[in-house]
Amino acid sequence: MSDQARPSPPPFDPERFRVEGRAVVDWIADYWATLASRRVTPDVSPGVVAGQLPPGPPEGPDSLAEVLADLDRIIVPGLTHWQHPSFFGYFPASASGPSILGELLAAGLGVQGMLWATSPACTELETKVLDWLRDLLGLPERFASIGAGGGVIQDSASSGVLVAMVAARERATGQRTNAAGLAGFDRPLVAYASDDAHSSVEKAAGIIGVGREGLRKIPVDHRGCMDALALATAMDADAAVGRVPFFVAATVGTTASGAIDPVAEIAAIAARHAAWLHVDAAWAGAAAICPEFRGELVAGADRADSWGFNPHKWLLVNFDCHALWVADRRAIVSALSMKPEYLRNRASESGAVIDYADWQVPLGRRFRALKLWMTLRMLGAEALRGHIRRHVSWASEFADLVAADPRFDLLLPPNLSLVCFALKAGDDATRELLDRVNATGRTFLTHARVGGRFAIRLAVGGGTTTRDDVLATWRVLENLA
Amino acid sequence: MSDQARPSPPPFDPERFRVEGRAVVDWIADYWATLASRRVTPDVSPGVVAGQLPPGPPEGPDSLAEVLADLDRIIVPGLTHWQHPSFFGYFPASASGPSILGELLAAGLGVQGMLWATSPACTELETKVLDWLRDLLGLPERFASIGAGGGVIQDSASSGVLVAMVAARERATGQRTNAAGLAGFDRPLVAYASDDAHSSVEKAAGIIGVGREGLRKIPVDHRGCMDALALATAMDADAAVGRVPFFVAATVGTTASGAIDPVAEIAAIAARHAAWLHVDAAWAGAAAICPEFRGELVAGADRADSWGFNPHKWLLVNFDCHALWVADRRAIVSALSMKPEYLRNRASESGAVIDYADWQVPLGRRFRALKLWMTLRMLGAEALRGHIRRHVSWASEFADLVAADPRFDLLLPPNLSLVCFALKAGDDATRELLDRVNATGRTFLTHARVGGRFAIRLAVGGGTTTRDDVLATWRVLENLA
Repeated sequence: MSDQARPSPPPFDPERFRVEGRAVVDWIADYWATLASRRVTPDVSPGVVAGQLPPGPPEGPDSLAEVLADLDRIIVPGLTHWQHPSFFGYFPASASGPSILGELLAAGLGVQGMLWATSPACTELETKVLDWLRDLLGLPERFASIGAGGGVIQDSASSGVLVAMVAARERATGQRTNAAGLAGFDRPLVAYASDDAHSSVEKAAGIIGVGREGLRKIPVDHRGCMDALALATAMDADAAVGRVPFFVAATVGTTASGAIDPVAEIAAIAARHAAWLHVDAAWAGAAAICPEFRGELVAGADRADSWGFNPHKWLLVNFDCHALWVADRRAIVSALSMKPEYLRNRASESGAVIDYADWQVPLGRRFRALKLWMTLRMLGAEALRGHIRRHVSWASEFADLVAADPRFDLLLPPNLSLVCFALKAGDDATRELLDRVNATGRTFLTHARVGGRFAIRLAVGGGTTTRDDVLATWRVLENLA
Repeated sequence: MSDQARPSPPPFDPERFRVEGRAVVDWIADYWATLASRRVTPDVSPGVVAGQLPPGPPEGPDSLAEVLADLDRIIVPGLTHWQHPSFFGYFPASASGPSILGELLAAGLGVQGMLWATSPACTELETKVLDWLRDLLGLPERFASIGAGGGVIQDSASSGVLVAMVAARERATGQRTNAAGLAGFDRPLVAYASDDAHSSVEKAAGIIGVGREGLRKIPVDHRGCMDALALATAMDADAAVGRVPFFVAATVGTTASGAIDPVAEIAAIAARHAAWLHVDAAWAGAAAICPEFRGELVAGADRADSWGFNPHKWLLVNFDCHALWVADRRAIVSALSMKPEYLRNRASESGAVIDYADWQVPLGRRFRALKLWMTLRMLGAEALRGHIRRHVSWASEFADLVAADPRFDLLLPPNLSLVCFALKAGDDATRELLDRVNATGRTFLTHARVGGRFAIRLAVGGGTTTRDDVLATWRVLENLA
């Protein structure tokens, strides 16, 4: 029977939300204010967190105070604090106040931007903000929405390369494989990326049916940059035996060492085979906001089919926010669009609007443009440039300290804010040093293999990081070496 | 040079965040408090929102007040209000206060759960909360993390079916195609789903290289349920000519009419061909939290390889939150795992932990378990059951009104809270009525094709919806018919 009286409180009560929202905002402010005093990484063994949680689900409601108490008692001690000022591992993924507020607004509005028609402003703000960002980074006009291209927010660079590779596969096969599958296509497709390209390129090749072995890994030079001559040779050899070189991923800022592939040269080679050129600038792309770093970061972008970077890495937008631009939006839409009856609408059929579900794997999508918009507006481009410049400067200073210490090898001059170094004593000693440094809980660094050696990486990128934090990390290293 | 003095304010200032966070919380509370007085859908043409935004990005910072003013002036008038009490389109995706607070906490903590080691509590809470949810829904033990299975949060049901289909492809080809690609596999793979299955199944078949034509669409009966005999015939016929039936998607609650495929029968047929059985219960799955609805929703789940539903649809967790369970987690991990040097760590190598990046397309992941945890704890299971029950009851009442009006055909008895109906006067008249009803801005419904007819759908699922809103929508329909 119907139930007008409502036996339980509504799931959204504005007045309750006002009170509880403030409590959570205060909890977060307190968390950030005390971050520096915490260990960066937790000291927990597998199962310790889970073991403190009840085995079964709650039947009745708990108060926010009870939940926050458990958050403090059980969850927080088991976290790696990615926003900690001394987080220098992987690439930092740094949030900012404005971006968190944007995420909160997106959750509060709770709109779905799968089609223009399902919330027009969600789509139009995204298109506009990505045009702004293209402008700020000095990316070519071909990616502007006013022409044949445009930008879209994906969750991550992995998804960005996946959709680019699907579009490339379709273009290379005359739009055949999306419908008929790859089994019916008798010439093997081949993709290319450097040995140091991100693992997501290989993962995408596996997912889309080309196969991980269908990705040729091109050697890198001593700096970690793709050897363009080796790429040309490999593509020519494949084409000569009837394979189809369909996709090249150039990396601008490799994960291992921040190396920048020679994109302009690669573009010329890819063009000879009509292969799709995707530029993965996930981390380093953000630095193109500074004119003095831009040159090598966007070189060749004017010949790329797609170009992506993560504002959620180094541009102070909280995860997830990957910005992907394409030169020809029809290529991506024709590969990914699905319009069953229940999604049809006049705006889509008019061709006058963008339906972003056609640019991605999932159908649904959050209003992620809000957090990018709020970050750009409330911080402003000049503050973002200062943020990047300080990190590059501190990394340079850190590299000088490494280079001056006779026990250490600076493996490469720093690429932007990434420093790779090792002990002269060898890989085992370097690995042991890294473990001992991280075990202090006072700083956090991760490793990679650079020029065949086990390297410690210092990636400066945290929104809360100061020069003192960088120098303090050097002192920990110096003392434990 | 280094820069210790900091020329611009830090991107996260706890005291500023306290003040601005409160303002945004209040903005959201005000938005929800005034939702009912707004049009559900906006009255805007393509380009109107974009045209009000500046052409270029901001150089200097704007205040939160300026940004919120633009939000009110430019963005909100261009939104479809998915949280509006009279939103009955598609399937509602309803947030709740606790889920929004969980999203806010996840953004505030800003941790990355790609590996157990990158934030252990993020992984362990997710595993535990999905075990709780399995328990609440009465799903079989095989999906519990204590055995060979386990649950994972994906962004959407589209991504859930994609990863299930990749795992199925690998299993069917002896783990060959992930490495060698599909071109090297000479027996065509065939997937199956009903004519009324979600478009994401076909999209996934295209993406993974099987091809959209490699998905056989099995006819449905007059209720929209897959014809199991037709499935058996199709699978046998494919196998007889050397094709490989590798994947079956059964739908529990189709988008068009909420129909429930006969999963137990389908499971038996799929098993004869060793095909992977994926159950897409995106919308209807939530209702399994109520014992009285559970029976037909989980029937056959004990033989499914994967089973997914969206807490973000009808369980008051804000988008995005798709819960996917697999019976054999090795199948999904072996298809999707990538561990380049820079991600290697002792915990992963011990085999004692879950690395959720191995269960999904992207590498990075947000701490989405928090919003599920907070929703379950702060509302409690019994309130969630009441939420579902009220909607089912109101939909039944609405269906009775439709059935009693001689101008209308109730096309099917309601499936849970979904009612499909049409005018006896035919498709054109029905479509015109839908347009006129939606043009009022007072309610919002969408359409589908049901039994060949153009159908108006009323999907009750909003967290703010009351019985009065459902009845008021009937009055609008009645008056305009």
